[in-house]
Amino acid sequence: MYVTHLECPKCKAQFDPKKLTQLCEHCSAPLLVRYDLDKVKTKFTKEALASRPYNLWRYKELLPIENEENIVSLGEVITPIIALKKVGAKLGLSHLYLKDEGMNPGGTFKSRGAAVGISKAKELGVKRFAMPTNGNAGAAWAIYAAKADIEAYIVMPEDAPLITRNECAIAGAKLYLVDGLISDAGKIVGKTVKKYGLMDASTLKEPYRIEGKKTMGLELAEQFNWEVPDVILYPTGGGVGLIGIYKGLLELRELGLIGEQLPRLVAVQAEHCAPIVEAYKKRESESTFWEDAHTIAYGITVPKALGDFLVLGAIYDTNGCAIAVSDANILEYQALLAQNEGLFVCPEGAATLAATHQLLKEGWIKPDEKVVLLNTGSGLKYPDTVEITPPLLHVTDEITIDGKVNEHLLFV
Amino acid sequence: MYVTHLECPKCKAQFDPKKLTQLCEHCSAPLLVRYDLDKVKTKFTKEALASRPYNLWRYKELLPIENEENIVSLGEVITPIIALKKVGAKLGLSHLYLKDEGMNPGGTFKSRGAAVGISKAKELGVKRFAMPTNGNAGAAWAIYAAKADIEAYIVMPEDAPLITRNECAIAGAKLYLVDGLISDAGKIVGKTVKKYGLMDASTLKEPYRIEGKKTMGLELAEQFNWEVPDVILYPTGGGVGLIGIYKGLLELRELGLIGEQLPRLVAVQAEHCAPIVEAYKKRESESTFWEDAHTIAYGITVPKALGDFLVLGAIYDTNGCAIAVSDANILEYQALLAQNEGLFVCPEGAATLAATHQLLKEGWIKPDEKVVLLNTGSGLKYPDTVEITPPLLHVTDEITIDGKVNEHLLFV
Repeated sequence: MYVTHLECPKCKAQFDPKKLTQLCEHCSAPLLVRYDLDKVKTKFTKEALASRPYNLWRYKELLPIENEENIVSLGEVITPIIALKKVGAKLGLSHLYLKDEGMNPGGTFKSRGAAVGISKAKELGVKRFAMPTNGNAGAAWAIYAAKADIEAYIVMPEDAPLITRNECAIAGAKLYLVDGLISDAGKIVGKTVKKYGLMDASTLKEPYRIEGKKTMGLELAEQFNWEVPDVILYPTGGGVGLIGIYKGLLELRELGLIGEQLPRLVAVQAEHCAPIVEAYKKRESESTFWEDAHTIAYGITVPKALGDFLVLGAIYDTNGCAIAVSDANILEYQALLAQNEGLFVCPEGAATLAATHQLLKEGWIKPDEKVVLLNTGSGLKYPDTVEITPPLLHVTDEITIDGKVNEHLLFV
Repeated sequence: MYVTHLECPKCKAQFDPKKLTQLCEHCSAPLLVRYDLDKVKTKFTKEALASRPYNLWRYKELLPIENEENIVSLGEVITPIIALKKVGAKLGLSHLYLKDEGMNPGGTFKSRGAAVGISKAKELGVKRFAMPTNGNAGAAWAIYAAKADIEAYIVMPEDAPLITRNECAIAGAKLYLVDGLISDAGKIVGKTVKKYGLMDASTLKEPYRIEGKKTMGLELAEQFNWEVPDVILYPTGGGVGLIGIYKGLLELRELGLIGEQLPRLVAVQAEHCAPIVEAYKKRESESTFWEDAHTIAYGITVPKALGDFLVLGAIYDTNGCAIAVSDANILEYQALLAQNEGLFVCPEGAATLAATHQLLKEGWIKPDEKVVLLNTGSGLKYPDTVEITPPLLHVTDEITIDGKVNEHLLFV
């Protein structure tokens, strides 16, 4: 293992990586894992990577697991990057791509954080944890915890995607609902971990989830043959995905595997829950709690992110931006993607395409730039985004092929 | 392309692979694609494969696509094979594995058939097709058809998994429900394709779906380093998956890439829809239509498969067997897998684990044999298999960590 220490990005205090540490003891900021990159450099080469397993564990020198026997795997894959030729042509973009995180175990990018987070928890001897969730993170941590024999206490809003309840429950997690938002679930978890001394697996309250998510950035760079794109758009709630991608790219740059110029990182939010966008507009370094947050892109219903300052820092450092889109737009671009590219993405993923079109129209994205959308999960987990009443036939009925039936099913 | 002809497995008649052909013109049997394996042998080597893309298209010499530009891809991956160490130990099996087809695009193995079927349809200039489906095949063909700009007419039972309606509809397919079984949907499709001259994409009524599904067998052999397992268990409705795996293994054997001994193939069915099992018990070569078919494993609710003689042939030739399991057993083993291995599989996939335990107890499977379960899809598509009523909290509530809450959520 090449980890040297855990570091507070605010006060720069260092902590021992051999012990379970949650937030900085001095300023309560999230901690980041630091590696001996000079040592990593000798092993982590393009040539060495070529012959390794085709999953995130191939980046082992940049992961915090000491003993490979502690790796908890549910069959992770390198998620595909798909060229969106038809949608790109419709929008006027010649190099538009989508990285499909819906292909992860459990149909969500959250599995990356859970894979590394649970593996490290196992290595550190954790027996129980609690976490608030908008659904997908809780489900991902529950399935990995089941394999690791770690007990999971999960609290999610009653409005979170229903299927994530199934995943938690069938995996044996202790599942609770709350009649509020993820921030309310977080308060219940806060009391619980304090009272019982549990590990707190809340977003950014342990340092290893980011390490899993940064593999999106590592994969993406390797998949593009170490020529990073011009723009990456990410649906942003808690922001760990974006922070992780940024951290991964910084590490690759320090290793000399990619050039100086990083992609411009774009945080995409929903118009009725856009605290990062508001802070970005005012060039502020932290966000303000968003009252009455709601959007169909449930995963990004996060009124105030603990790592908001890291998200905003990544945006400013890369000359990126933050942009909000409407729920109506999200559904429209979700259908556009499905009908043209055959990709049934989650509403959070669809938001990045809506944002791309907006930024292209504003001139912020140029028609010949290489643009990558991160689809964070599968549309299969969001049945409510498609409303249909197909005709019901009896065996004696016939179908008429005149191109006019079922027009109501067409979205765009 | 190395395809020489299409062949009728019953009367051995040959047909031109350059033309769209459905069933044998003489005996109405499904057609099989035949290759010039002597020529294939020169290109399809272990060494050549090593440097190819990590998806099913790596097996290009054994696929029927002439021009690679016709390939329609949604980001297929080599699906993982996961060692079930904990469940294996509980059952008393030392080498139990699961190949997770839920990791395919659309969360189903049906995407393999659709990827190759739609690519070939595009190559042959097909503009429209119709098909009956138990849900997942129709959804898979609909999303691939969307990318290929081919019009899809899909007819599915109203009891098919609801999410597959969403997939068809959002991808722009013309979707119809029927108040009956897939056999009734098939009758409606039959009338439609005859009247309008559409391509009929029903199971085994075109020869290319099998070619996609056989890649499960090719992958599996390569993933096990060309040492095939002793037993493969497959949930069997229409049977194309099992037929495909068998065809792939036969081709690999003829190429000299695997040894003489093939795995014993096991067709797993549900006790209330077990026509193949009934035929197997009587050592018959064809099955009889199953009246009043029903099971929670909806994908295998097929009262009479067109390719039943091919399924039974594969079973007899490999010294395999056919076995039926109950719905109650399916749900029990689904939970066993999730709680121990973190794998949330579809009921069809869970059926193979129930069958494995039964065959182990009967002595048909030996404790040290290498056994592979094919999980054909993701549990995410079957929300009704998990019934839960988690406690609803308010933000001021607390959780008690005494290991006794939510006991009702535990299944095993």
